[in-house]
Amino acid sequence: MLPDFNNPDQFRAVLAGTPEPDTVARTGAEARNGQLTKPPGALGRLEDLAIWYAGWRGDPRPQIRAPQVIVFAGNHGVTAQGISAFPAEVTVQMVANFKAGGAAINQLAKAAGAQMDVVALELDRPTADFTQSPAMTEAELIAALRAGWGAVDGDADLLVVGEMGIGNTTAAAALCHALYGGQAEDWTGRGTGLDAAGVSRKARVVETAVALHRPHIGDGLDALMRLGGREIAAMAGAIAAARLRRIPVLLDGFICCAAAACLREVNVRALDHALAGHQSAEQAHAALLERLGKAPLLSLGLRLGEGSGAALAIPVLKGALACHSGMATFAEAGVAEG
Amino acid sequence: MLPDFNNPDQFRAVLAGTPEPDTVARTGAEARNGQLTKPPGALGRLEDLAIWYAGWRGDPRPQIRAPQVIVFAGNHGVTAQGISAFPAEVTVQMVANFKAGGAAINQLAKAAGAQMDVVALELDRPTADFTQSPAMTEAELIAALRAGWGAVDGDADLLVVGEMGIGNTTAAAALCHALYGGQAEDWTGRGTGLDAAGVSRKARVVETAVALHRPHIGDGLDALMRLGGREIAAMAGAIAAARLRRIPVLLDGFICCAAAACLREVNVRALDHALAGHQSAEQAHAALLERLGKAPLLSLGLRLGEGSGAALAIPVLKGALACHSGMATFAEAGVAEG
Repeated sequence: MLPDFNNPDQFRAVLAGTPEPDTVARTGAEARNGQLTKPPGALGRLEDLAIWYAGWRGDPRPQIRAPQVIVFAGNHGVTAQGISAFPAEVTVQMVANFKAGGAAINQLAKAAGAQMDVVALELDRPTADFTQSPAMTEAELIAALRAGWGAVDGDADLLVVGEMGIGNTTAAAALCHALYGGQAEDWTGRGTGLDAAGVSRKARVVETAVALHRPHIGDGLDALMRLGGREIAAMAGAIAAARLRRIPVLLDGFICCAAAACLREVNVRALDHALAGHQSAEQAHAALLERLGKAPLLSLGLRLGEGSGAALAIPVLKGALACHSGMATFAEAGVAEG
Repeated sequence: MLPDFNNPDQFRAVLAGTPEPDTVARTGAEARNGQLTKPPGALGRLEDLAIWYAGWRGDPRPQIRAPQVIVFAGNHGVTAQGISAFPAEVTVQMVANFKAGGAAINQLAKAAGAQMDVVALELDRPTADFTQSPAMTEAELIAALRAGWGAVDGDADLLVVGEMGIGNTTAAAALCHALYGGQAEDWTGRGTGLDAAGVSRKARVVETAVALHRPHIGDGLDALMRLGGREIAAMAGAIAAARLRRIPVLLDGFICCAAAACLREVNVRALDHALAGHQSAEQAHAALLERLGKAPLLSLGLRLGEGSGAALAIPVLKGALACHSGMATFAEAGVAEG
């Protein structure tokens, strides 16, 4: 049973009470890894992944059988500032495409054997234009966090959260600029396909918004409310719920990682259960991953969102566990240990 | 029906007659890619992979349904020089492990939905110690090439070839040193786990062997006979058969790529149907991939062989084709094109 929260401070308290991985299971997994029919270390990063996963699942010999992909969608008032190559109507059109099974994430989730859920968040009621006022009220922030929190399947053994929301790379850039400083340009990229003039305009929007809100931002949750969006807050809520349930998470691209960063700026241990699935081509993602201390499993130039990069990494993690839990030991196979 | 060969020159003639990908299918795939419900280019390298694969399969909208993994095993006379951390008996023990389903490649092939075959090549009759004489006679080379050639399932739509053979990183290093020059040290690594003194001794063995054979090496096939091994020649034979059948190949690590390099040093187009699945931690693999002009799909620090790195990349290619062939177009989904 997960704890509940009805205001930002209660959510902060929930994040402060995050559990640790199971050290007994982790130690058992390390011992097993040393006995498998391969030279020591020959499976490279797969070995670390398997041991890490075993600790979080509390099982020295687990498999991944029930991954869940959740795509959250929201609309953004900041689109009034002309910061996207696509019109805002595309958000609702793409939600219909997700529900009909026609998007990239549908194919990747299916290929990875993952359950896929779609959560559309009040698409007819965009957040406020955060160049003018906070994107969300406290009540709106809590509602979005709870939507993500409640969407995580308690029986899932791996979680990917993705998003759709025209304008949301602008929100993610503003979050990063607010949390990590630097110049607005450092965090502002092409999104779905802006030209250089568009990126420049977008950076000015990010700069203006952060200048307006910075005096009122004490931590990641303040930033999320003022500069985020419903789907970004919902991703944060889902990642937090997975943390409490010890369900490992594969982080997706720039927007997903911006949501995750907000949690980490409340509790530095909030992302210990999360790995970076894929390094996006969105220009600021590499810098954001560095801030999160996460080395991506894949780097294949995707910049789509939807959870697509992380979903593509599910089979890598599955492969790591298939080896760890399925291989014979030297003793079982009668192989000399060298 | 594939052509046959009974001597090295006939094999060279076969390699000279390699077919091209289907440009009509490729053009059709490019057109389809431009209509899918995503911003242009947003699937990054997955888009190039899908279009490339479509050309080789002659189908603008293909899926990957029948991948095949073949593991070839052979023994090496050069183990007499003390160049491996494991005893030569491990080759036959690991073949039993492959057949019983206990090795890493068994788990990865199964996780990727691939058929797996194991071909053990005269394990009780190691190749000659190539510091003294050619590793194989012409007849032995042809027999090994034919073993690989015949092992490819004509109904496969993707091929991974892997290997097991105590001593075979020494053979691969000698092949690279013979084909590409440089110093023996440039191509010599830790293999299954040599220490620094062991690597140094191994480099001297590589240097001695290449000095002995270099005057007699005119192309990649000469090198393969003199410095290769049965499983390495079999991998080359399988990669060549896939080239003629237009079955795309995911190359594995250092030894697999050394086999592939021998083909490329006979016909520079011999590897057009092949991608690098994974960059190994074996130190010379990155340099070898550069010589082959292949950028790896994955880089996760594996150094096991068996086809493990390439098998781990099968789901990436599957994911690319799942998106390409399964996604809705803008028109089908009623999504605005931005």
